[in-house]
Amino acid sequence: MRSERIPAFLDGYGAIHSFRSAGLGRGKNQSRSKLMPGLRAAIEAAGLKDGGTISFHHHLRNGDSVVNMVLMEIAAMGIRGITVAASSIFPVHAPMVDHIREGVVGGLLTAYASGPVARAISRGELAAPVVLQTHGGRARAIASGELKIDVAFIAAPTADAFGNINGTDGPAACGTLGYAMVDAAHARRVVAITDNLVPFPASPIDIAQDQVDYVVEVEAIGNPAGIVSGTTRATSDPVGLAIAETAGKVIAASGLLEDGFSFQTGAGGISLAVAAQVRKLMHERAVRGSFASGGITGYIVDMLDEGLFGALLDVQCFDLKAVASYRRHPAHHCMSASMYANPHQRGAVVDQLDVMVLGAAEIDLAFNVNVTTGSDGVIIGGSGGHADAAKGARLALVTTRLHAAGIAKVVDRVTTVTTPGETIDVLVTEKGVAVNPRRPDLAERFLSHGIDVLPIERLRDLARAGASVAIAPPSAGSEGSVGRVVAVVEYRDGSVIDVVRQADHLA
Amino acid sequence: MRSERIPAFLDGYGAIHSFRSAGLGRGKNQSRSKLMPGLRAAIEAAGLKDGGTISFHHHLRNGDSVVNMVLMEIAAMGIRGITVAASSIFPVHAPMVDHIREGVVGGLLTAYASGPVARAISRGELAAPVVLQTHGGRARAIASGELKIDVAFIAAPTADAFGNINGTDGPAACGTLGYAMVDAAHARRVVAITDNLVPFPASPIDIAQDQVDYVVEVEAIGNPAGIVSGTTRATSDPVGLAIAETAGKVIAASGLLEDGFSFQTGAGGISLAVAAQVRKLMHERAVRGSFASGGITGYIVDMLDEGLFGALLDVQCFDLKAVASYRRHPAHHCMSASMYANPHQRGAVVDQLDVMVLGAAEIDLAFNVNVTTGSDGVIIGGSGGHADAAKGARLALVTTRLHAAGIAKVVDRVTTVTTPGETIDVLVTEKGVAVNPRRPDLAERFLSHGIDVLPIERLRDLARAGASVAIAPPSAGSEGSVGRVVAVVEYRDGSVIDVVRQADHLA
Repeated sequence: MRSERIPAFLDGYGAIHSFRSAGLGRGKNQSRSKLMPGLRAAIEAAGLKDGGTISFHHHLRNGDSVVNMVLMEIAAMGIRGITVAASSIFPVHAPMVDHIREGVVGGLLTAYASGPVARAISRGELAAPVVLQTHGGRARAIASGELKIDVAFIAAPTADAFGNINGTDGPAACGTLGYAMVDAAHARRVVAITDNLVPFPASPIDIAQDQVDYVVEVEAIGNPAGIVSGTTRATSDPVGLAIAETAGKVIAASGLLEDGFSFQTGAGGISLAVAAQVRKLMHERAVRGSFASGGITGYIVDMLDEGLFGALLDVQCFDLKAVASYRRHPAHHCMSASMYANPHQRGAVVDQLDVMVLGAAEIDLAFNVNVTTGSDGVIIGGSGGHADAAKGARLALVTTRLHAAGIAKVVDRVTTVTTPGETIDVLVTEKGVAVNPRRPDLAERFLSHGIDVLPIERLRDLARAGASVAIAPPSAGSEGSVGRVVAVVEYRDGSVIDVVRQADHLA
Repeated sequence: MRSERIPAFLDGYGAIHSFRSAGLGRGKNQSRSKLMPGLRAAIEAAGLKDGGTISFHHHLRNGDSVVNMVLMEIAAMGIRGITVAASSIFPVHAPMVDHIREGVVGGLLTAYASGPVARAISRGELAAPVVLQTHGGRARAIASGELKIDVAFIAAPTADAFGNINGTDGPAACGTLGYAMVDAAHARRVVAITDNLVPFPASPIDIAQDQVDYVVEVEAIGNPAGIVSGTTRATSDPVGLAIAETAGKVIAASGLLEDGFSFQTGAGGISLAVAAQVRKLMHERAVRGSFASGGITGYIVDMLDEGLFGALLDVQCFDLKAVASYRRHPAHHCMSASMYANPHQRGAVVDQLDVMVLGAAEIDLAFNVNVTTGSDGVIIGGSGGHADAAKGARLALVTTRLHAAGIAKVVDRVTTVTTPGETIDVLVTEKGVAVNPRRPDLAERFLSHGIDVLPIERLRDLARAGASVAIAPPSAGSEGSVGRVVAVVEYRDGSVIDVVRQADHLA
């Protein structure tokens, strides 16, 4: 337009690309919706090819329908050798096993796997080793570009046709979308799949339209009954309650239960009973805490409402009460997986935690914790945020019964290392407390508060004595390799902390 | 730890980097605050060197103290040849002129400049051409990596020691931080500067800690009196009111004023009077609009509160009423500059606008608009979101008086092209309405609604006849180059739509 006035080159600016047209075809005069007629059209538009990498988030947990519908469509399209980067995998994702067998899925990265897919991994159905990450390690790998996602599929409880998304409304409302935020920010293409398409703009907005390429409307993205557990409850078992009471004493004696206190716990029965103890103690001592974080349950919401915490930092709502709180409470914040636990991105929330209450499938004499496999070496879960929070928290406290189903849980050496013992401070069992020798300060505190501290070897002995089943894990005893490696366990920084080998007895 | 079990290489995974240590030195046992003892320490920690690029956002507008304090510190440190990428520059930033003269600042990119720095650019004080961007073009350049920011300095009305930031609280509360969000997401290092350091976590959180490296506490980040104008008011001048009334009729006749209507206007006197007309019309016609966007004023907040719009999408609060609304109203959303106007990132909010009301310093027979320079070629502003919203909106409507201070505003050819005429649909003046020949549909509609539509040549004649001052711009009349190029005007896609030449009469 003014090209006669515009030089072709300017010192200090360089070659000039002169304006030609505002390109109205793509704006004013064209439909601006990102709505696609169906899943296939979106996958085609996203350009997914054989060998591509796709990602999913797990806020719909065992009620999720999106992983299955996407893989079914990809299979029907004849695409093969896909790598699936799913933040977690649940029993509902059983159809993935067939896609693995048929070569549609050729690779898998996840922070947690349970159910048929987990067993298929352990049987060695995938040729390539599965990568078991931590939640923070997954965010790190994605944000750093180490894990490149071609297409992220976002299960969107609510979306508009331009890709603004929230997790608070709709039939499959799941609350915050912390894991999906990282995928949306970094994937080459982002597809939102929703069963609650609303007029522009969706309100509130958890993931904004400038991160979303395509929107697909479907009948249902999930089964609400499986999305959030209405039955997340503290244990009522006397052994579990005794452990929780001791854990409460340990936290009280730690010196951390003061104004500004911060706290995280999982949604297991003992963990919730510990939360109940902490709540009681905070009331008794008039402690005004700073924040609670992690996956959030109704127990923690109650503590916010009672003023025990100033804020919640929530990567994932565990129940409907947490979803409702996120919708209404201005101090109930969403946090991305990167803000939560990414070890390489400017300081994660886990690094500001005072107390983290952790579970264990096994714990050993070096305080290493296994939440990845059973004692038989078969995959039953994975780190999730376990290793991340253990590393960050001032007091990383593991609670466990000495045995479960007749099998000892305090052992010489864990079958699989999920979380390194150097990051675990205290073990609380129904028969007593063990303190990591790296923390003599804690042992001293506990003794001065009348808490019985035992050597962890003594707890191992008690566990062994009470066990009725002896399990020989596939590779236990041998220091060499026994069986093919079916999965690598990555620590949060991407280094490999252990491997999982093929469980031939499952074949 | 388990290295004896872990192979050095795995098919399908590659070379294995074996876990060695959780690196406790950086976590549990160390101070985790990002708080620096002062600005200099933060600049040093961020690694800023000669020739580096730094960025600023302009939500504190003419009350901002952060640009000046940072440049003063950089100058004192002896760093030279810095490129400043500021979303806008105001009269308060006058000290930058000395930094330019002394070689501390060697390059400049901005979407708007007024005051002493603008005049210094026009005088040719910078050796390298200044790059005048649009708000959307700036976001595009940053998000695409074309504009690499070494250190982004975020004026943070509230921050905690770990870098969580909000704009809603504190003495310099400015509301949303839409421009800063893009800088924080992409800069190599991010420094938050705050005068309201709060306990962790800041609540709410507009920019999260995983995007912030360092936090610096200072006495004051701005002068509240200059941050938000308490006097943003609709014009009371009869000519301005007449223009606004005609603009209201034009909007009513456009066919767009129906349920789902979306609207944006600036904070100028006529623009706000147009908003008042639209408000009246929406009430009369019981129109329930979809959203209003852009910089948000109290006028638009009233329309939200009255239910005329379902949501506000707000990149920048223009007054205290807007700040208060963002704090309290769940449908008053922040949007990043990228979501607002980035032309290359998956569809911007401007692309969903029905009506955009724009101002003009000059408009010409091809409907090109100049908001960059005066008729004398001296820089007085810049696009901001002007070219972005004109391109996106279904009806881009320019309102202007025919002359100002005796100078004609409808001219043969604008002194500087900011926004291409192909994206402008209608011009409304006190003497009548002109419609871009590209939009015969609109001309027909207006005529059928009894609105007088004149050829734009007729408005040019009326403007010329009423003008008392004749200005010869430095390069007007000549098609060749006259004077050195001191600034390039980039369209939102990065192409160069015009250049600004040295104004020797300012020297």
